[in-house]
Amino acid sequence: MAEVKAYSLENIAKKLNLEVRDISRAVKRKILREYEYKDTKILLFKKEFKHIEKGTVVFLNDNLDVVRGYPKTYRALTLYPTIKEHFIDKVVIEEKLNGYNIRVVYINDEFFALTRSGYICPFTTKKVKKYLKLDILKEYPNYMLCGEMIGLNNPYTPKFYEEAQQEDENLAFYIFDIKERESNKSLTVEERLKLCNIYKLPHVKPLAIVDKEKAHEKIKEIIKELEHKKREGVVLKDPNMDVVPLKYTTHYTQCDDLREAFKFFFDMGLDFLFSRVVREGFMSYEFRESLEERKKRAKDIGEAIILPMAETIEKIASGERVTEDIELIFDSEEDFYEYLEFLRKVKILVKIKDIKELNGKLKVLIGKVYNKTNDKVLAYLNGTLWGE
Amino acid sequence: MAEVKAYSLENIAKKLNLEVRDISRAVKRKILREYEYKDTKILLFKKEFKHIEKGTVVFLNDNLDVVRGYPKTYRALTLYPTIKEHFIDKVVIEEKLNGYNIRVVYINDEFFALTRSGYICPFTTKKVKKYLKLDILKEYPNYMLCGEMIGLNNPYTPKFYEEAQQEDENLAFYIFDIKERESNKSLTVEERLKLCNIYKLPHVKPLAIVDKEKAHEKIKEIIKELEHKKREGVVLKDPNMDVVPLKYTTHYTQCDDLREAFKFFFDMGLDFLFSRVVREGFMSYEFRESLEERKKRAKDIGEAIILPMAETIEKIASGERVTEDIELIFDSEEDFYEYLEFLRKVKILVKIKDIKELNGKLKVLIGKVYNKTNDKVLAYLNGTLWGE
Repeated sequence: MAEVKAYSLENIAKKLNLEVRDISRAVKRKILREYEYKDTKILLFKKEFKHIEKGTVVFLNDNLDVVRGYPKTYRALTLYPTIKEHFIDKVVIEEKLNGYNIRVVYINDEFFALTRSGYICPFTTKKVKKYLKLDILKEYPNYMLCGEMIGLNNPYTPKFYEEAQQEDENLAFYIFDIKERESNKSLTVEERLKLCNIYKLPHVKPLAIVDKEKAHEKIKEIIKELEHKKREGVVLKDPNMDVVPLKYTTHYTQCDDLREAFKFFFDMGLDFLFSRVVREGFMSYEFRESLEERKKRAKDIGEAIILPMAETIEKIASGERVTEDIELIFDSEEDFYEYLEFLRKVKILVKIKDIKELNGKLKVLIGKVYNKTNDKVLAYLNGTLWGE
Repeated sequence: MAEVKAYSLENIAKKLNLEVRDISRAVKRKILREYEYKDTKILLFKKEFKHIEKGTVVFLNDNLDVVRGYPKTYRALTLYPTIKEHFIDKVVIEEKLNGYNIRVVYINDEFFALTRSGYICPFTTKKVKKYLKLDILKEYPNYMLCGEMIGLNNPYTPKFYEEAQQEDENLAFYIFDIKERESNKSLTVEERLKLCNIYKLPHVKPLAIVDKEKAHEKIKEIIKELEHKKREGVVLKDPNMDVVPLKYTTHYTQCDDLREAFKFFFDMGLDFLFSRVVREGFMSYEFRESLEERKKRAKDIGEAIILPMAETIEKIASGERVTEDIELIFDSEEDFYEYLEFLRKVKILVKIKDIKELNGKLKVLIGKVYNKTNDKVLAYLNGTLWGE
């Protein structure tokens, strides 16, 4: 931590409202790590630590600029009475987009896009600079634009969205929250919408604003519609952001999560499985399903688990190594290599499967490698005994 | 550990082929615990420790009699080539019964039935003494009879078995292994069958003995038949017990396990879920299923998860507290109270739901209490937020 020492631990502690000994301990326990992007050095909280969110970043500059981590959004397992209990009076219903969470900040006369974990992602940084007019952050450098990067051509959650279509790729950033980056205080919904409109920034728009007593009914309707459109779900917010938002997702999303996870089941299956099926149990109860409807739900869930898993086993049995293949567009070779270097640094294993040129741009097919699934399935196919 | 100290740690260590300092550490780390049944005091390994199996017991008598834990039985995720790789030449195929694993021993002129965890179970001890002629153990006190206690009227794995029907209850003990209790060495299959026949002991009979090269084909046939009969599966053994047995279970059992676990999903769901679906993935692959067959399998699995879970949520929502209700028959009130005391000691929470007299016997309906499921479901139904 040579770099850190060049800065005063005391000042870092003060900025974070922590004690110096807390910082030292966080460093020692590898919760606080150093990370570098080009010439920019940051400290990064790998885990939640006291009141500091995971993904919180301290820029190692003279200001010791802080960007707080985006807080975990809790889930309502039941709409009623959870919403009524949680909210104050009104509830703003927004659509939840299924991409990856990004905070965009302006520090040292530069724009940075930080992932949920707190890494400065070169891919995302370039894309937000390309597609968004970020003048707002020059005006309000104490803000961070929090939003979802969605579309088929992103490296983390590739899902097609009609509204994300650009000339060369399916990728767009939608702001769903604007926060003071050092205090993590959100603007009210109204303020956020106003600023997004003034600065012409793409943003998530409220689907409805309802009384908390009736919110569950309206949300049920909306969820049914989103289900039909194969979309992820909703985020529920207090108009003044005086209580934290809640989320609720569609049956489609539960199945979709499982389908993706079970392609690489020894890497991701365990973490995903239980939480998804529990959501479905509560949803089936709350939506007062008939036995027939419940069996339909069960069938969907079963298929989302078994079909991709069996397919993966078949592929590996036939000699393939399975990868998650994602198509990304880079403006230059330099951008591409820089991103590969980033992936190496954050320990995401990839294999380049194809590179094409397209209008002077690079279209790259990247295969994410899930070694655990490949290795374990192969071992079991070859006779390794299973202890569970 | 006052009692232990009355015995020489050195002698205990010697009996177990451990160092004295190992024993001390095991005691200190609470792996080795004291336990009492009437006047019989034992030491019990709560976990695997070096070469000593979990569930291994040392009787605190002058001999320091040892009863080794029943070893974990590994699973073949694929029949081919796992069986071919694992076995030497021949494979004995036996049916796997779905009950609870018991070791019966004769020590200090008394018979004891030990559970897999190593507890002397008063219920089981009385039942094996009632239903079995145990003279064999007087003849061979160095042996332990290892078997499955099956039937609807057992407290741990209540499943109806036609062949377990007695006059007043559905309960029977089937021997599947005879071992030297201090060395854990098994008799050969032939020796075991011979002894069981001589002493007229109920035992599991081989379904077939086959060459290891062709075993997977025969087992597939047997598994299909067992599936049809809704039975658990098979255990595969070397005729001389020179390599450890393997197990393989039916689709029916995978579903049945999930159905049971998801009635009490916050207590048992997480542990059961992933392992069961993974077995199904490999089975679907190995049985070369058509898409239609695979979808049928998926539907069964989905329903085994979702239906009991949603039903439990509905019950709890309507004000019930869910319990697993089991009917047990006791020969006397004393036996019943002794067993309740045992359940208290091993921290199984129960509620007595009904007591009837029947031919001088007691027919008791015991409800096993799963607090985690009841408490958590109630909390989420009342609006508690969910962090997953």
